[in-house]
Amino acid sequence: MSIEPKSDSVGIVTPKVEHFDQPLALGSGQSLPAYDIVYETYGELNASRSNAILICHALSGTHHAAGLHSDSDRKPGWWDHCIGPGKPIDTQLFHVVSLNNLGGCAGSTGPASINPATGRPWGPEFPVIGARDWVASQARLADRLGIARWAAVIGGSLGGMQAMLWAIDLPDRIAHCVVIAAALKLSAQNLAFNEIARQAITADPDFHDGWFLEHGSAPRRGLAIARMVGHVTYLSDELMGDKFGRELRSGSLTQGGVSNAEFQVQSYLRYQGDQFADNFDANTYLLMTRALDYFDLAREFGDDAPAAFRRAAARFLVMSFSSDWRFSPARSREIVDALISAGRDVSYTEIEAAEGHDSFLLPVARYHEALGLYLKRVHRELSHAA
Amino acid sequence: MSIEPKSDSVGIVTPKVEHFDQPLALGSGQSLPAYDIVYETYGELNASRSNAILICHALSGTHHAAGLHSDSDRKPGWWDHCIGPGKPIDTQLFHVVSLNNLGGCAGSTGPASINPATGRPWGPEFPVIGARDWVASQARLADRLGIARWAAVIGGSLGGMQAMLWAIDLPDRIAHCVVIAAALKLSAQNLAFNEIARQAITADPDFHDGWFLEHGSAPRRGLAIARMVGHVTYLSDELMGDKFGRELRSGSLTQGGVSNAEFQVQSYLRYQGDQFADNFDANTYLLMTRALDYFDLAREFGDDAPAAFRRAAARFLVMSFSSDWRFSPARSREIVDALISAGRDVSYTEIEAAEGHDSFLLPVARYHEALGLYLKRVHRELSHAA
Repeated sequence: MSIEPKSDSVGIVTPKVEHFDQPLALGSGQSLPAYDIVYETYGELNASRSNAILICHALSGTHHAAGLHSDSDRKPGWWDHCIGPGKPIDTQLFHVVSLNNLGGCAGSTGPASINPATGRPWGPEFPVIGARDWVASQARLADRLGIARWAAVIGGSLGGMQAMLWAIDLPDRIAHCVVIAAALKLSAQNLAFNEIARQAITADPDFHDGWFLEHGSAPRRGLAIARMVGHVTYLSDELMGDKFGRELRSGSLTQGGVSNAEFQVQSYLRYQGDQFADNFDANTYLLMTRALDYFDLAREFGDDAPAAFRRAAARFLVMSFSSDWRFSPARSREIVDALISAGRDVSYTEIEAAEGHDSFLLPVARYHEALGLYLKRVHRELSHAA
Repeated sequence: MSIEPKSDSVGIVTPKVEHFDQPLALGSGQSLPAYDIVYETYGELNASRSNAILICHALSGTHHAAGLHSDSDRKPGWWDHCIGPGKPIDTQLFHVVSLNNLGGCAGSTGPASINPATGRPWGPEFPVIGARDWVASQARLADRLGIARWAAVIGGSLGGMQAMLWAIDLPDRIAHCVVIAAALKLSAQNLAFNEIARQAITADPDFHDGWFLEHGSAPRRGLAIARMVGHVTYLSDELMGDKFGRELRSGSLTQGGVSNAEFQVQSYLRYQGDQFADNFDANTYLLMTRALDYFDLAREFGDDAPAAFRRAAARFLVMSFSSDWRFSPARSREIVDALISAGRDVSYTEIEAAEGHDSFLLPVARYHEALGLYLKRVHRELSHAA
């Protein structure tokens, strides 16, 4: 083994880009003529090319899941506590591939990219992309990387939905499917919050019907509000209470102008919203929330989720978090029930965690332990098969 | 008894206005120099003036709680199913007073009223108003109407908070306090949703820092988004699922432009938002949500809610709804626990209802039955005392 700068970090990583010239036919009936996919890899691919794990990201994720981009980089990848040597997704055992989805804004082709047909950014004319399209584009990336079959496809939230579609659409190419804090489809309440987020973006005059880049602007306030709405649904009421309660910023109510943030939770939310608005493309946010809305695993199977899962061959690990009210444990149990009805091999664990939906992004000890043990078993199988 | 046009309706009602010249000192340290209060009454005041009930409204309520304003009026008051002859708040037994709170936009002095000092609308310079200020202004109205003591003060949500403050601040003037779907204070999550609503309003360029009337405009889109946020928190996930599920408007996904409302719940929310934006003053919405934020029953009592309630003499009925996640039954039980600790007389009932927080505005059978029985007892006491 080589010497690591930090024993449990994947260290400095460099994103790679693959260009695809063959048009991608999309579920919407549209087609993407050519595109780039940016991705990172951590850990070595073994000689039999059998130890690769694909990470599917959620609403606002990127390819940068672990490690640092330079010596001076202070912010590691979004799942750094989970991916690395000796970590649950152990890079001493697995070759991990993490990409930015099509339609994203972190380097893969998306609404801010140039539309070759017009020479200007795609903007609102970027094709509608669904979770199934992502899986198809990820499969092409796997082809390019010479990965015929994933040891596991892992995703949380919207990422878990992609993992399930991998198992259904490409059953020969996925051995294990890890579905964390996901659902078979969005509830009416989920749809409602997404609708509000999109309304906030499109109502911002700086949105310019999606042509904000052409106008040298960005719907920052709308995007910040959209993020605040999302953020509240990611956290549990309990966590927000523990974290902020009704703490005042100044120690006493000023009852001043409406622009004052008098409670800690207000300034926290505003900070979260502003940070996000500085770093995310509004058209990507619209696209990602719509991909969530449209996702409905059983739709093409007569609303029969077990029928969908009967096409799968993978073994499943489904995980949920007790305080998640966005995709509650009940929603994960629907997945498990459908898998059982389909006769599939499934393990399920509900993790006690106070952090709501966000738990899937956090280093919750029992969660890491359960995921790590499952993947160790996956790795042992590889050794036996070899 | 006179002949009623509809036997269970209070019939045609005419709002009345009382003008107050004496300045009202407010909790914010500011003062309102003079003001109007618009109100309605239903049912006859008895000879001993002991059978009056005060209705305190919630965030977007008005004085028009029951009956119709004309023969051609098709929309009865907001609590018409609960107030009338033979209804839970029985106008054959009680004289019901319902007012529009100060700061409102239905006829009482508020941000859209003319500031006598400037000759233009108060707009954002309208004083900050708290629930305690409303109680003080309601007491002045009671003085004017010759009502020394209410048989009951009744309110749901923010209205319930006013009812509790009546019991604490003016214990001699309230015999019964009916607190429906309320809380001792807002949670961090409650605060967060209010903050998002206000951000949506103030981010709208038509808000003009609150001077939209001067600009002949109104922040309609921001107000609509604010209302949508609120509306989702009023409904239960279960109800939204039953009502809309993932029903599509067209029967199939069009995956068209982002402005399309493809799911029923989207068009429903947009309709709710637009309706509200046409009929409500944005500055009033800001004021009402801040009154909610600032409400904290125990604040002036060393965060000791029982100490607050020890000042009360009224008997209490506390009611909650099983599916309410805005002010859940657990929040009502906190009220009940504090009342018990304070040695107060309290009845509590949790009503099974699927409609979430909105249940308090709906004709839920068990709710009406419990409220009606309680008020019949209140009326019997009046007869015995007489």
